[in-house]
Amino acid sequence: MDSEDCFPSGYDAFRRTCPSHAVLETLASKWVHLVICALRRGRLRNGELARKLEGITPKMLTQTLRILERDGLVRREVFPVIPPRVEYELTELGQNLAGLLNQIRAWSEQHVPDIKDARARAAEQQEDLDA
Amino acid sequence: MDSEDCFPSGYDAFRRTCPSHAVLETLASKWVHLVICALRRGRLRNGELARKLEGITPKMLTQTLRILERDGLVRREVFPVIPPRVEYELTELGQNLAGLLNQIRAWSEQHVPDIKDARARAAEQQEDLDA
Repeated sequence: MDSEDCFPSGYDAFRRTCPSHAVLETLASKWVHLVICALRRGRLRNGELARKLEGITPKMLTQTLRILERDGLVRREVFPVIPPRVEYELTELGQNLAGLLNQIRAWSEQHVPDIKDARARAAEQQEDLDA
Repeated sequence: MDSEDCFPSGYDAFRRTCPSHAVLETLASKWVHLVICALRRGRLRNGELARKLEGITPKMLTQTLRILERDGLVRREVFPVIPPRVEYELTELGQNLAGLLNQIRAWSEQHVPDIKDARARAAEQQEDLDA
């Protein structure tokens, strides 16, 4: 993230060397997206996140949380009990982003029928071409 | 996308077998994201897209456009001239999504300094741990 001086007129995510391109790349991940959405309503323990995010491997969950911690989107709190309890919550920056990501998640759910219809039409057209 | 009957109470992108999970997965791609943002202001030719999306390979651009056409987000128009001219534009469904994706792109550009600060703090903490 040292190249922003090259962009005196501001950041431009379309430019591969702009640091905002790397930020967008981090966000453009299914698991980053879903972890942030899952934490939107409050803090969760590691196991709660793992159950909420069906299909995520423990390794991928840990990796995703480390990225989000490093980028200041998620805060990890370790409680000194036995066994140790670890909880994750969104920072203010993460909360700010969560609203937007959640709208994309809602869009994905609302528009399944539209996309299903489009795929069926595309398959028909392909059949016509193949006939 | 045949399993939606399993979700009588609606789609849930957190569930790996829900078709909305697959929709979200398609959208969670840097290039899908940037192609949709690039077409937001109007139709573009293939070469214009390639120049706008710095660093995309021709193969990745073609693949991304095929996915977006199949899912009904982008429309391709071929003009019968020599050499053939091919233009891409967002469908109504694509336009509907483009507003949201563009907000995420803008967020990535606006919050570079915050994320840079967070990474610097994370690196300092790591140094303290290593010391």
